[in-house]
Amino acid sequence: MTPRPTTTPDHLRDAVPGHLRDAVAAARQDVTTLHGELLRWGLVAWTAGNVSARVRDPRGEGDLAVIKPSGLAYDDLTPDSMVVLDLDGNVLEGTLSPSSDTGSHLYVYRNLPDVGGVVHTHSPYATAWAARREPVPCVLTAIADEFGGEIPVGPFALIGNESIGAGIVDTLTGHRSPAVLMASHGVFTIGATAKAAVKAAVMCEDAARAVHLARQLGPVEPLRDEDIDILYTRYQNVYGQH
Amino acid sequence: MTPRPTTTPDHLRDAVPGHLRDAVAAARQDVTTLHGELLRWGLVAWTAGNVSARVRDPRGEGDLAVIKPSGLAYDDLTPDSMVVLDLDGNVLEGTLSPSSDTGSHLYVYRNLPDVGGVVHTHSPYATAWAARREPVPCVLTAIADEFGGEIPVGPFALIGNESIGAGIVDTLTGHRSPAVLMASHGVFTIGATAKAAVKAAVMCEDAARAVHLARQLGPVEPLRDEDIDILYTRYQNVYGQH
Amino acid sequence: MTPRPTTTPDHLRDAVPGHLRDAVAAARQDVTTLHGELLRWGLVAWTAGNVSARVRDPRGEGDLAVIKPSGLAYDDLTPDSMVVLDLDGNVLEGTLSPSSDTGSHLYVYRNLPDVGGVVHTHSPYATAWAARREPVPCVLTAIADEFGGEIPVGPFALIGNESIGAGIVDTLTGHRSPAVLMASHGVFTIGATAKAAVKAAVMCEDAARAVHLARQLGPVEPLRDEDIDILYTRYQNVYGQH
Amino acid sequence: MTPRPTTTPDHLRDAVPGHLRDAVAAARQDVTTLHGELLRWGLVAWTAGNVSARVRDPRGEGDLAVIKPSGLAYDDLTPDSMVVLDLDGNVLEGTLSPSSDTGSHLYVYRNLPDVGGVVHTHSPYATAWAARREPVPCVLTAIADEFGGEIPVGPFALIGNESIGAGIVDTLTGHRSPAVLMASHGVFTIGATAKAAVKAAVMCEDAARAVHLARQLGPVEPLRDEDIDILYTRYQNVYGQH
Repeated sequence: MTPRPTTTPDHLRDAVPGHLRDAVAAARQDVTTLHGELLRWGLVAWTAGNVSARVRDPRGEGDLAVIKPSGLAYDDLTPDSMVVLDLDGNVLEGTLSPSSDTGSHLYVYRNLPDVGGVVHTHSPYATAWAARREPVPCVLTAIADEFGGEIPVGPFALIGNESIGAGIVDTLTGHRSPAVLMASHGVFTIGATAKAAVKAAVMCEDAARAVHLARQLGPVEPLRDEDIDILYTRYQNVYGQH
Repeated sequence: MTPRPTTTPDHLRDAVPGHLRDAVAAARQDVTTLHGELLRWGLVAWTAGNVSARVRDPRGEGDLAVIKPSGLAYDDLTPDSMVVLDLDGNVLEGTLSPSSDTGSHLYVYRNLPDVGGVVHTHSPYATAWAARREPVPCVLTAIADEFGGEIPVGPFALIGNESIGAGIVDTLTGHRSPAVLMASHGVFTIGATAKAAVKAAVMCEDAARAVHLARQLGPVEPLRDEDIDILYTRYQNVYGQH
Repeated sequence: MTPRPTTTPDHLRDAVPGHLRDAVAAARQDVTTLHGELLRWGLVAWTAGNVSARVRDPRGEGDLAVIKPSGLAYDDLTPDSMVVLDLDGNVLEGTLSPSSDTGSHLYVYRNLPDVGGVVHTHSPYATAWAARREPVPCVLTAIADEFGGEIPVGPFALIGNESIGAGIVDTLTGHRSPAVLMASHGVFTIGATAKAAVKAAVMCEDAARAVHLARQLGPVEPLRDEDIDILYTRYQNVYGQH
Repeated sequence: MTPRPTTTPDHLRDAVPGHLRDAVAAARQDVTTLHGELLRWGLVAWTAGNVSARVRDPRGEGDLAVIKPSGLAYDDLTPDSMVVLDLDGNVLEGTLSPSSDTGSHLYVYRNLPDVGGVVHTHSPYATAWAARREPVPCVLTAIADEFGGEIPVGPFALIGNESIGAGIVDTLTGHRSPAVLMASHGVFTIGATAKAAVKAAVMCEDAARAVHLARQLGPVEPLRDEDIDILYTRYQNVYGQH
């Protein structure tokens, strides 16, 4: 079971290794800024959504994660208010309790080494699909681009042990989608960076909304698998700046 | 019947007891700021929504309430424009008429001693459920967290006497939910503080919207009672900063 | 037929009588500010919506109207860019062409002497009811408060002659509602002031949206006529500051 | 096939002819500002939408186009970050890769000489109609004004060759509408200027939303063809400042 982060003994705090200090400082800033993007794109109500970033340890002594404190208003977030933990959940820096979803974020980092950022939201349209436990079908080119197929549904899992983390990892392993709709709950997204995970959360809600609206007035024709493959491959390789 | 606040004799104004002056000043500021949150989260149109805060009297001589003046634009609200009343509806400070919903707020304070804040909105999705007189079912973990079950419906009641207040108190007594959908009307929420009541109003609209969207495209599976209990208990005790 | 305002001869411009100059200046400012409210409350796309104000002539020599120029972006509106006309459509001040809806606004001022402000929008939910040519039923207390019954539908009418104006006046005469849903077109609202007409436009969209959302998931119980009467009478007399 | 812009040899960069420098600078500014309008009117998520402007060469030696770089955040766009290409896709100025939709924009410019601006979005309601491959019917006067009839659907086409561009041109040729709903994809709009194309994109989403909402609760009566003709002709000639 994931250790309860809030029971970390005081002697472990302020324990970020010197060679990771700059990377942690940069991640604190990134994660603060990216929570503003959750708000801006309408993905969160009140304090219900969080972003974390992995800080890779080039010496291989153990990666860290930077995450939002629990229940703080987005306006009140600052780089200094963020919580820094090791991937076992020990708090290394921070006086506030970390997000109650921290255990799920850390499980993802421990089990998916390529993931550099995790985002959790209850964004409304995606959560509606999650409530029905129905994947968002790949009926638009933008969904093929970003998700390479449908946006899948993960299991129903209670918070407080590893079951949410395991549900995320099991569902996304071997799947192109960086987003999973956790049944009766909400969205988790992953990315090579925290920014990429936030982008996936924005695009997941955008896809969920467009297909919701389309389906309200009639059936929608799915894309062909070969077209999805062409679109996904092209987008992952050509889009953006390289 | 609740006294008409606007008929308070002039000699009662500026009558806040000295030992409550600081608490009243703080409440004026809080209530002003929190009205901005109603606007920010899309819960109100024009001037249709209000927040109040109880000011507790540690001497037990009688609590007070601070509430928005009637019909004022949210942009024009200032701490000084707020109205201070005793719980019988006598205006102690303020030159403007208090919100036309004041009687309902005061009834709640008189009858639910633990309540420190009350919010009223016509937020659109919650009001849609209220119009159908249908509770929002507990089909998402966030609803179990915040409301501990469905968001209940209160009776249809006309403004101007105690029937709205009584409908709120009767519905919420013995219920975990801090929100009630008043039939054919809108939402009232309560909290230990005015901020907590505003949070409940934000989360009520968020829940009402997500379930609305979910139900538009198919049936939604309810959570099991034992899972709701686990989620509610955990959230009330672990979430946020302690 | 309403004279084409844009054909006003030059010698009529800058022809506001001296005793109305201050009132015209105040109306220019009001109308500019109120267009910002259309934007803020989501009632308009691009430039599709307009507000006008009547300037009453205390000497009885002829009221004036101040209205938005046609096709100007809301950000570019200033008091100086507004167009001042007499109620026959002669431009007295202004170098820009007035709103293409000017003829309808002026028809209302000529035929409803109590009206001091007119607003036109294509706000989305209200326009949806207008497209179906279906009144918004009075199923919420807020609708009883503001509209005193259903929000009625006016006839289909083409722009360019008096038929829109006549449709507005015919529908609203003898009706409590300050808003009319013009068939297959959009919303016109009236008020004692331009601000009151803007409030009616905001509340019309709010009502149209709430009832739309309610009806999407099931039938909605109408309010009883006697309750509507009580609510409407109370709201018109008690709400706000007097 | 459209040349891959990113393979432009370095010696072609900074190759804007001297007599077009001022017009290119103005277009860089316009296109930057207009991307802000996509954001403001809710037409885009993250970076998924783009605006381009044609720069006409009065000497007839070859028009240019100014377009957004691929994958850049809207907040980070500046006039200097824009990419300038000739209509065959050779980059003349710019260090960033142009939008991945550049080929489609250029195809439109090459084949529709009157077009001065092109916009592409996945705006949610319009994309919902595109997903169903269903035109937006002309049931509102505003749709007759702007589109002169229904908003048509173009073919399904994959990005990367000329098929999207050809689908846009084939669908809009001989059609009054400046907007086309590309099947299972999104919206392309054209205009005499980039600003006109942005306006068409805003109005297309507004129309798509209003008709979506109308149709959700019942059937909608179409306008008569003769009324559409009257409205379209009048709006194109009378609306705005001339």
